[in-house]
Amino acid sequence: MSDLPGEFALIARHFRPLAAPEALGLGDDAAFLAPPPGRELVLSADAMVEGVHFLPADPPDLVARKLLRVNLSDLAAKGAAPLGYLLTVAAPRATPDGWFAAFATGLAADQARYRIGLYGGDTTSTPGPITLSLTILGTIEAGKAVHRTGARAGYGIWVSGTIGDAALGLAALQGRLDDPDGTLAARYRLPEPRLGLVRADLVAACLDVSDGLVQDLGHLCRAGLVGAEIEAALVPRSPAARAAGPAWLATCLTGGDDYEVLMAVAPEHEPALAGASTTVPLTRIGRFVAGPATVRVRDETGAAMPLDHGGWSHF
Amino acid sequence: MSDLPGEFALIARHFRPLAAPEALGLGDDAAFLAPPPGRELVLSADAMVEGVHFLPADPPDLVARKLLRVNLSDLAAKGAAPLGYLLTVAAPRATPDGWFAAFATGLAADQARYRIGLYGGDTTSTPGPITLSLTILGTIEAGKAVHRTGARAGYGIWVSGTIGDAALGLAALQGRLDDPDGTLAARYRLPEPRLGLVRADLVAACLDVSDGLVQDLGHLCRAGLVGAEIEAALVPRSPAARAAGPAWLATCLTGGDDYEVLMAVAPEHEPALAGASTTVPLTRIGRFVAGPATVRVRDETGAAMPLDHGGWSHF
Repeated sequence: MSDLPGEFALIARHFRPLAAPEALGLGDDAAFLAPPPGRELVLSADAMVEGVHFLPADPPDLVARKLLRVNLSDLAAKGAAPLGYLLTVAAPRATPDGWFAAFATGLAADQARYRIGLYGGDTTSTPGPITLSLTILGTIEAGKAVHRTGARAGYGIWVSGTIGDAALGLAALQGRLDDPDGTLAARYRLPEPRLGLVRADLVAACLDVSDGLVQDLGHLCRAGLVGAEIEAALVPRSPAARAAGPAWLATCLTGGDDYEVLMAVAPEHEPALAGASTTVPLTRIGRFVAGPATVRVRDETGAAMPLDHGGWSHF
Repeated sequence: MSDLPGEFALIARHFRPLAAPEALGLGDDAAFLAPPPGRELVLSADAMVEGVHFLPADPPDLVARKLLRVNLSDLAAKGAAPLGYLLTVAAPRATPDGWFAAFATGLAADQARYRIGLYGGDTTSTPGPITLSLTILGTIEAGKAVHRTGARAGYGIWVSGTIGDAALGLAALQGRLDDPDGTLAARYRLPEPRLGLVRADLVAACLDVSDGLVQDLGHLCRAGLVGAEIEAALVPRSPAARAAGPAWLATCLTGGDDYEVLMAVAPEHEPALAGASTTVPLTRIGRFVAGPATVRVRDETGAAMPLDHGGWSHF
């Protein structure tokens, strides 16, 4: 017995070139890591399933980059800087080698972009859909993390970027909506984690919008024991999202996959926050209010907008 | 919108009680962790798929404990002490709540046994089989890890415990072998990670036997640029494995799921290693030899045993 079994040859071919120095060329059972002095580790994990989180026809390099980016987005929301990741891939035995090659190409591109490395993982077969799980590691100055708790009545509710493009992009890829220049589909397939934007001195509470704006705002409300009121007209939408028309507004507010940051900001910090980024717009969409942990969405007349759900739930 | 969506209610019900202090009750997007001074972090990840790594009829609490233990076994092989873990669960929407309850019960039992906590993760739906991914974190005194490299010609090849029970247990659960008292099936369903056994001052190289003794020994050979010769008669087998008869010997040597540690030990350290554990037998099964990174298995007459594969490969 001297040949390298297929599983390990596959790992050597596609994943070893991605290994961080701490992963010893993926030639050991583990990675060994000493975080920089004075900094805490920040850890998060997210899974993606073919047919649930991405479409079978999605290019594998974009699937890989989305998987990395949805995890990087969690770091961004906490104010952390990325360090590296562990990855498990369950794929059918018949998955072509080219799928793994393209998947690894996507990882390599975003490893370079975000200056991170692969620490380890596992590759396994499955009789089901491709199922990916990624654990991201970041660091943050000790004590400077931004948590979900911290929203108070009177604080502003701020979001980065535009909301709803990804949900409309999914609709476009499913043939339910026109997307002439492909911008909506691109936002669905490749989110932009807002690293470097959230700072503990300006932002009282934060999370990233992954399951729908209204539902995720509910998490900030429950964590802070406050209510929230937002104005639909203030929610920033891209030109493409506005062009889809008012029938798609509720989808934008509840659709998920935005990976923008949603922030609670004390009034005295709002002017500084408003000017905190030159690369992405930051918009106040409402205020936290005293009362039960409920999200109210008002339309342009001030009336409550009926929404049949707040966002995505797997169960 | 004020009700907790089903996915988050499920997490609160089953997984929040398992949260480590660093995970903030799973109420944030991440966990925050400062490793103890002077110690390195050790990171590893493994996935398990229903129908591949466990059987649909396996009790969910044992599936959970096996998932934890196969990861703890990687820490054991590096000489590390466990700290905590992140977990992603992809399960069909129709998965009964009782499955999650039993799964969490198993996690709780082994969290108490190994004094570890849950740092975070993700719960998602899938149209496919239950697919689990776990990232384990441990710590080790800086510079004291035991790697796969380090085997030299003349070093002894040592294993803990007995080899082959788990592979025979799988055969028993599939109705291919008698297992009157269930010991073989128990070894398949619930491995025993050998934490605390592997020390850098005695062991030159180590990994855990997960994919089959012969194949995993090949990893030590390739990492150390040495060959290996083992004697089948020296490979420790349990009374139940011996009772299965000689027809099952090859299965024992290549079958996988043992989660024993496989060690390269310099001759001067062999006496100390032999007495290093009072709880689990440690057995020398052969020696590393100069030459190509090949594993030779000899039978009782000294002849080479033919094996049609060295172990399990997913691809």
